[in-house]
Amino acid sequence: MTSQQAQIAKAGIRDERVSLAHGGGGKAMQALIADVFVPAFDPPGMEDQARLPAPTVLSEGGELAFTTDSFVVTPLEFPGGDIGSLAICGTVNDLAVGGARPLWLSASFIIEEGFEVARLRRIVATMAEEARKAGVRIVTGDTKVVERGSADGLYITTSGIGVIEKGRALSSKRIEPGDIAIASGVLGDHGATILAARGDLALSAPIESDCQSLAALMEAVLHAAPGVKAARDATRGGLASALNEMAEAAGVTIKIDEDRLPVRAEVNGMCEILGLDPLYLANEGTLVLFVPESEADAALEAMRATEAGRGAVVIGQAVARGPIPVVMNTSFGGQRVVDILVGDQLPRIC
Amino acid sequence: MTSQQAQIAKAGIRDERVSLAHGGGGKAMQALIADVFVPAFDPPGMEDQARLPAPTVLSEGGELAFTTDSFVVTPLEFPGGDIGSLAICGTVNDLAVGGARPLWLSASFIIEEGFEVARLRRIVATMAEEARKAGVRIVTGDTKVVERGSADGLYITTSGIGVIEKGRALSSKRIEPGDIAIASGVLGDHGATILAARGDLALSAPIESDCQSLAALMEAVLHAAPGVKAARDATRGGLASALNEMAEAAGVTIKIDEDRLPVRAEVNGMCEILGLDPLYLANEGTLVLFVPESEADAALEAMRATEAGRGAVVIGQAVARGPIPVVMNTSFGGQRVVDILVGDQLPRIC
Repeated sequence: MTSQQAQIAKAGIRDERVSLAHGGGGKAMQALIADVFVPAFDPPGMEDQARLPAPTVLSEGGELAFTTDSFVVTPLEFPGGDIGSLAICGTVNDLAVGGARPLWLSASFIIEEGFEVARLRRIVATMAEEARKAGVRIVTGDTKVVERGSADGLYITTSGIGVIEKGRALSSKRIEPGDIAIASGVLGDHGATILAARGDLALSAPIESDCQSLAALMEAVLHAAPGVKAARDATRGGLASALNEMAEAAGVTIKIDEDRLPVRAEVNGMCEILGLDPLYLANEGTLVLFVPESEADAALEAMRATEAGRGAVVIGQAVARGPIPVVMNTSFGGQRVVDILVGDQLPRIC
Repeated sequence: MTSQQAQIAKAGIRDERVSLAHGGGGKAMQALIADVFVPAFDPPGMEDQARLPAPTVLSEGGELAFTTDSFVVTPLEFPGGDIGSLAICGTVNDLAVGGARPLWLSASFIIEEGFEVARLRRIVATMAEEARKAGVRIVTGDTKVVERGSADGLYITTSGIGVIEKGRALSSKRIEPGDIAIASGVLGDHGATILAARGDLALSAPIESDCQSLAALMEAVLHAAPGVKAARDATRGGLASALNEMAEAAGVTIKIDEDRLPVRAEVNGMCEILGLDPLYLANEGTLVLFVPESEADAALEAMRATEAGRGAVVIGQAVARGPIPVVMNTSFGGQRVVDILVGDQLPRIC
C-alpha cells in the first residue's frame, strides 16, 4: 500500500451500506478496496494487473489451466457456506478436476447499491478463508456497483489459473469400457440445502452444502492412481448431467447402480416430497471420476484418506456404447434411462 | 464439438429470449453455448477449463500477468461500441498498460431472463471481432441466467492472461521528476458518449466511444522507447484519477497544461452545460504514459504511427514532490489542483 492508501484504509469506509460512489473509480472506491478487500486478500500489488512468477512446471513442459465462473446463488448465505465460499471452491474445483494445481484466483464483484458493508466483509472473509484452505491466492479483482434493483444483492465472478504437470492429460475422451466410476461423497446436499434455505417451502432439514475444495483430493488420487482418466465436479445439472457429458465425450455407456449412490435420507426425503431427483441436484464439493479397474482400490483408498473424499464409493462402470449414454440399475431390479437435465430444476443454485 | 453437441448446435436455440433453463446446466444451456458462443469464440475445448501451452517468454524469465473486470455499462449498446467491445478492450488494456502481451481471455455472462437472443448474438459477435483485432483468444467462459428484475439485461466479466518479457518492469513507482507525460489521444469521449446515449439529457453529440485495444500501441512504444516508466489507461475516474494514483505511487508531483489536453470541442461543450469536468470522464481506449525526456520524441512518434495513438500529445511532466500530487496550469495562466475523483461522476460507465 502507498501512504495515501494506508491513510484511506485507516480512515476506513465509514458508510454502513455500499453506494454508487464505491464503484466510481475515485476516493470512495479506494476506501472500500483498502478497507474491505486488501486486508482480507493481501494481493501482491495494487496495479490493475497481478504479476506472477512462472511456475517451474511450465518450463518442464507443463500447461496452464484457465477457468471462470459467475456466482449468482440465492440466498447469499446458507448452511455450510455462502456465495464467497462457492466462488472460491467452484473455480478451484474446475481447475482441480482437470488435473491442474490451482494457484491464483481473480475475484470481481457486482454489488447492488445499498448492500450492507458488514455483510460484504463477512463474505469476503469466507473467501479469504476458503482460498487459504484450498492453497490459492486471490491476486487481482474488480468492484462495480449498480443501482438499487439492478442486481440481486451481490454477484461474484472468479477466474482461476492453475498448472498441469507434463503428461497429466485428464479427459473424458479417455474413458474406456471397464473403467470404474467413483463418486467422492454424498450427492445433492448443496441443491437440497439451497432449496431448504430459500424458506418458501416450509421445509427444514439438518443438511449443509457440501461446498469444499477438491484440490487436495485430486492431488491425492492422482498420486495414488495415476491412471485416473477423467474427473468432473457434479455442479449444475448434478451427477446425471456430468455422467451424460462424460459418456458422450468418451463414446461409452455408463451404468450406475441406484443402491450404491450415496444420498442422505434427508435429501431423498425432500426429493420425494418435491418431485425432484437427487441425480440432478447440484453439488459443490463432490466429484465423479473414472479409473481403470486395476487402480480402483488405490484410488478409493487415497480419496477416503482426504477430508473431501471420506465418503468415496464406487457407483458404476463404463461399458461399450449402447443405445443410451447413461443407464441406472434401479433398487427394484429394473433399468432406467438417466438423461441429461432438461429445463432447469432449480435456478440460481450457484 | 462432440456429435451430440454438433446435433444440439444444429438444432440451435429455438427461443427468441433467454430463459432460466439456459442457465440450468442441462440441454438448453448446451444449446445456447453451442449455438451462440462456440461459433463466435471457437474455444480450444469444451471442458470447464482451458488448457494453454506455456509461452516461450515464461521459460526465459518472463512473468504472467492476470487481470479481471466486470462490465455493467448502461446502455448496453452505444456509438462506437457495446458492452462486449468494452469487456474485451478493458481487459486487454489492463494487461497491455502493464507491459504484458495479452494472450487469453475468459468471458462470463450474467443474463437477465427475457434477454433477446438476437441481441446477445450481436454483442458476442462484437466481442469476437474485438478479440481478433486485439490478437487475443477467448478460451473459456460461463453463463448464468437470473430472473427478470435481478439484473439489468446483461453483465459481462472478462479476465485476461498475458505474458511480460523478462526485464520489462513498468510501474508507477518508477516515475521520476523530469519524466514526460504523454496522452495517447483525446480525453473523455467514452464518458460523454455514454452520457449522451442515455438519452435522458436531450443531448446529442457527434461523438463516439474511444473503446479500442491499446495492445498494439503499447508494443510499438515499448519497442521504440524501452525507457517508458509506466502507463495507465484512464478509465473510471478519468485522467485525473489515473494521474493522482501515479503521482502518489511515485512520490512525485505531476504538472499538466490545460492548453495541451486533447479534448474535443463537443465534449468540452457538453461538460460546460452539465457542470462536468473532462478530466474525470472515463476513457476506454486512451492511456497516459511517462517516459524519460530523452525518449519522449521516439515514444510520441511510435505512438502516432499506431491507430490508437494517432492523437498522442505531451500533456505535462513529473516534477519533485510538492504539497499537491497533480497540478494543472490553466488556460488563464493560473494553477489548479487536480484531485482524485470524489464521489461518482457517472455510474455504470463501463
